[in-house]
Amino acid sequence: MPKAGITPRAQDYSQWYLDIVREADLADYAEIVRGSIVFKPTGYAIWEAIQSGLDLRIKATGHVNAYFPLLIPKSLLLKEAEHVEGFAPEVAEVTRVSGVELAEPYVIRPTSETIIGYFYAKWIRSWRDLPLLINQWANVVRWEMRTRPFLRTTEFLWQEGHTVHATEEDAERETLLILHDVYGDFLENEMAIPVIKGLKTEKEKFAGALRTYALEAMMQDGRALQAGTSHNLGQNFAKAFDITFSDQNNTIQVAWTTSWGVSTRLIGALIMVHSDDEGLVLPPRIAPTQVVVVPIYKNEAEKVSVMATVARLTAEWKGRIRFKVDGRDNLSPGFKFNEWELKGIPIRVEIGPKDVAKETVAVARRDRPGREGKSFIPQAGLTEHLIELLADIQQSLFTKALKFREEHTFFATNLAELQAAVEQGFARCYWAGSKEDEQRIQTDFKATIRAIPFDQPPTPGPCVLTGQETTQQVIFARAY
Amino acid sequence: MPKAGITPRAQDYSQWYLDIVREADLADYAEIVRGSIVFKPTGYAIWEAIQSGLDLRIKATGHVNAYFPLLIPKSLLLKEAEHVEGFAPEVAEVTRVSGVELAEPYVIRPTSETIIGYFYAKWIRSWRDLPLLINQWANVVRWEMRTRPFLRTTEFLWQEGHTVHATEEDAERETLLILHDVYGDFLENEMAIPVIKGLKTEKEKFAGALRTYALEAMMQDGRALQAGTSHNLGQNFAKAFDITFSDQNNTIQVAWTTSWGVSTRLIGALIMVHSDDEGLVLPPRIAPTQVVVVPIYKNEAEKVSVMATVARLTAEWKGRIRFKVDGRDNLSPGFKFNEWELKGIPIRVEIGPKDVAKETVAVARRDRPGREGKSFIPQAGLTEHLIELLADIQQSLFTKALKFREEHTFFATNLAELQAAVEQGFARCYWAGSKEDEQRIQTDFKATIRAIPFDQPPTPGPCVLTGQETTQQVIFARAY
Repeated sequence: MPKAGITPRAQDYSQWYLDIVREADLADYAEIVRGSIVFKPTGYAIWEAIQSGLDLRIKATGHVNAYFPLLIPKSLLLKEAEHVEGFAPEVAEVTRVSGVELAEPYVIRPTSETIIGYFYAKWIRSWRDLPLLINQWANVVRWEMRTRPFLRTTEFLWQEGHTVHATEEDAERETLLILHDVYGDFLENEMAIPVIKGLKTEKEKFAGALRTYALEAMMQDGRALQAGTSHNLGQNFAKAFDITFSDQNNTIQVAWTTSWGVSTRLIGALIMVHSDDEGLVLPPRIAPTQVVVVPIYKNEAEKVSVMATVARLTAEWKGRIRFKVDGRDNLSPGFKFNEWELKGIPIRVEIGPKDVAKETVAVARRDRPGREGKSFIPQAGLTEHLIELLADIQQSLFTKALKFREEHTFFATNLAELQAAVEQGFARCYWAGSKEDEQRIQTDFKATIRAIPFDQPPTPGPCVLTGQETTQQVIFARAY
Repeated sequence: MPKAGITPRAQDYSQWYLDIVREADLADYAEIVRGSIVFKPTGYAIWEAIQSGLDLRIKATGHVNAYFPLLIPKSLLLKEAEHVEGFAPEVAEVTRVSGVELAEPYVIRPTSETIIGYFYAKWIRSWRDLPLLINQWANVVRWEMRTRPFLRTTEFLWQEGHTVHATEEDAERETLLILHDVYGDFLENEMAIPVIKGLKTEKEKFAGALRTYALEAMMQDGRALQAGTSHNLGQNFAKAFDITFSDQNNTIQVAWTTSWGVSTRLIGALIMVHSDDEGLVLPPRIAPTQVVVVPIYKNEAEKVSVMATVARLTAEWKGRIRFKVDGRDNLSPGFKFNEWELKGIPIRVEIGPKDVAKETVAVARRDRPGREGKSFIPQAGLTEHLIELLADIQQSLFTKALKFREEHTFFATNLAELQAAVEQGFARCYWAGSKEDEQRIQTDFKATIRAIPFDQPPTPGPCVLTGQETTQQVIFARAY
C-alpha cells in the first residue's frame, strides 16, 4: 500500500524519487542557490557512511588523503585541451573580492586534475617519488543545465583520487584496482548495488582521459546510473603539466597519471535501487541506524516495565548493532512506524506490555513491508537473531537488485529490439559502429553506450546497427 | 642541537615555524592561489585526527552533521548589519559562469550563519522542532591580508556548529557546553594544549554575536592563539532571518541561536605549542603514527633475523598502537631517525642484530631528544611499556606547555608592566577601560584582550589603565 506523500513508482518514477527525498527528510532544495541542495542530517549521515566505507578501502589500497585549493587560476584550467572543452561550459568564476576586480579570475574546481597536476609537477623529481597515491575529499561546482537532488547538483561532494606512476602498466593496474577493489567491492558488498564494470567508449570517456572505466548500475525504472569512474589519463595531463621524473638511468621521463571519483550521487543510486512505494529502504551495512526500537505503552506502569525491558535488551547491542530507541512521548506508535518506514531503517523492534509478559518482541523487516516481514521473536537470543537478520536483509537486497537487472537486460540483434530494450532496461548487443553511429542512436533512442563490459563473448556476432561481424558487445541504456 | 633546515626558535620564531611546516612536509604554498596552501598528506592526516576526535565529541553531545551550500547569494550576506561589516571586506564573489554574467552574484561562504539561517527559518515551525543541533564540516574562503600556513589562509577547513533554541538560557548553556565539553576537553586531553577559557570583549567578539566565548592558548613565543570560539548569537540572526517558532501556548516567538567553530589553524597551534628545534613534536593521542620501528641490519642474514623480530613484536600492536615499520632499503638508519624526528613521531623503536641477540630494543622518545630520551628495553612486555610511555609523553607535553604558560604569565599593575608582560607572554590585570582604551592599548603595545577569563578574583583591584576599582580581570596578549 503506497504511503501518503509518496507517488507510486509505477505512476511517476521521477516524482516518486523526489517524494522519497522529501519524505525521508534527506535533502532540501536550496532554491536560492541555483541547482544546489542542502544535505539534511538524515541524508548527510548516509554520505558519512559512504565516506567511511570508501575511505577505509582507499587507505587499505595504499592511498593517503590530502587537500588542494578550491580555487583554480583560470589559465591553469586551459592547459589540457580536451579537458577545457569538457569543462569550460560549466565553470563558476570568481572575478571580484569585495567589489574589486581580480587581475586574473579563478574558477571553482569542477574537478582537480589541473591544480593537482601543477603541484605534482613540483613535487615529483625521481622514480623514488613514484607511485604517488593521493585522494581528496572535497566539494566541486559544475553549472549543470538540469539538476536533481543528489543525482546532479551544481555543488556536490565527492572523493577524487589522483595518482602518478612510472609506467603505463602501473597506471592501468591502479585504474583497475580502484574499479574492482575500492568501488566495486564497496558498491556490491556495502551498498548492495550490483554493478556492471567496463570500459567507456571514446565518445563517453572523461575529457582528457586515455581510457575511462566505469561501474554502471540499473535503477528501478530500467535506466543506468554511472556510480563511479576510474580514468587512465595516460600522459595527457603529465605532458600538459610537465609531470616528469628521472628514471633509474637518470633519464627524464614523462609520468603516467590516473584519476577516479565517486560522489554524493551514490545517495541517489542507493535510493533508486532499493526503495519502494513505502519510502526509503537502506541496506543494513550502510544504514546509519540499523534497528529502531519502538516501545509501546498506555500508562506510566506499562512504560516503566517496557522501558526496563528495552534497556535490558539493548544493553547487549552497543558496538554490535547501530540502534535508536524512539522514546518520544507525544507521538503514537503508528506515527513512529510510519516515520521509520519512510526513513528506511532496516529493522523495527516493537516492545509492548504483552511482549514483556511473554518474553517476546515483534520484529519487522523494512525490505518486506506489512505482515510478511513481521514476526514474533523470543527475547532470549534476540541480539544474535537481529545480527543474522541484518545480514539476511543485506543479501536479499543485493539479490533482488541483481534479479531485477537480469530481468531487465535484453539481448538486441536489431535496432527495433534495441529500442524496445532501452525502453525497459539495458540492451546488450554486438557493436561495431562509429562515434557518429553512437551519436545517432543517442539522438533516435535517447540511449548511450554505458559500457563495453569486461565479460565479452567467446564468439563474434553481427553489429546491431551495421551488421558487421565483431567480437565486441556493449550495453546501451538510457541514463541518469 | 638544531637540525639542518630548521632555524632555532630563539633566533627567529616565525622562520622556525615555516621551517617546521616545510621540513615535516605538512603543507606547500599554493603560490598560484593567493594565500592558499596545499594540505600535504602528513599535514592532512593531523587534520583527520582532529576531525575524528572533535566529531566524536560533537555527536556525543547530541549534534548531527549536515551540509549547506558553498555559495551564498550576496543579498543574503547583507541581512545582518554587524555581520556584513565584519565580513564584507573579505569575500570572494562569483559573478560569471563560463564567461556569462550572473544576474545576482554569489559569495563563497566566509562562514555560514546567513545561508543556514535562511534554511532554519524554513524548517522551524514549533517548539517541538527545538533545539536544532547541527554541525557542518566545510571549507570557507576569506581574503585575508596577511596569510601564514595553517594559521591564516585564504581557504581553510573547519567545522561550524549552528544551533537554535527556545530560550536565551538554552542558547547560553549550548554555547558553554561546546566550549567546555567539546573544545576544551579535546584541546587539553587530546592535543595536550592547555587553554584559558573566557569571554571576549565587545571589541573582540564575533560580528553579529551577543557574546563570544573563546579558548586561548599560549605559543612558545608567548603570543596567544585563539583555538576556538563559541558564540551566543542572541536573537540577532534569528531576527534578521526570521527564525521563529510557535511556543506551547501557540504564540510566535523569536528563536535564540548559537554558532561555534574550530579550524585547520589548530594544526598551527599544535606545531607552535609542542615542537622544538629538531622538528615537529606530536602528542601521542593526536599523532597519526605513534611509534615508528626502524630495523637496523648490514646484510641479508641480519635483515632476516631483525625483520622476523620486528614482525613478532609488532603483531601484538594492531588495534592498540598506531605504528609504522620503516623498511626502506635504500636509506641509512641515521637518515630515517632524522626524518621521523622532523615529522614528530612520538616514539622510535630501533631493532638491530644486537637487540635480537639480547632480546632488547632501543626506545627513543621524541619529546626528549638525544641520549636523555633513549633507553634499552626488554622485548618481553614491550607493548605495555610503549602504551605507558605514550601516555607519559602525552601527560608530559601538557604539563610542559602549562608550565611554560604559567612562567610567561605576569600580573600587571601599570602600563609599563603590561607592556613588559606582553613582550614575553600574557598579561593578567584588572581592567575597567572602554572600547577606545582597548584600541589604544592595541595601537601602543600591539596587544589585545584575549579573554575575560572565567576564573575571576574574589576581591576588586585598580584598573591597569584608569586606576578605577573593578572586579574584572582580563588577559592581554599579542596574538596570531
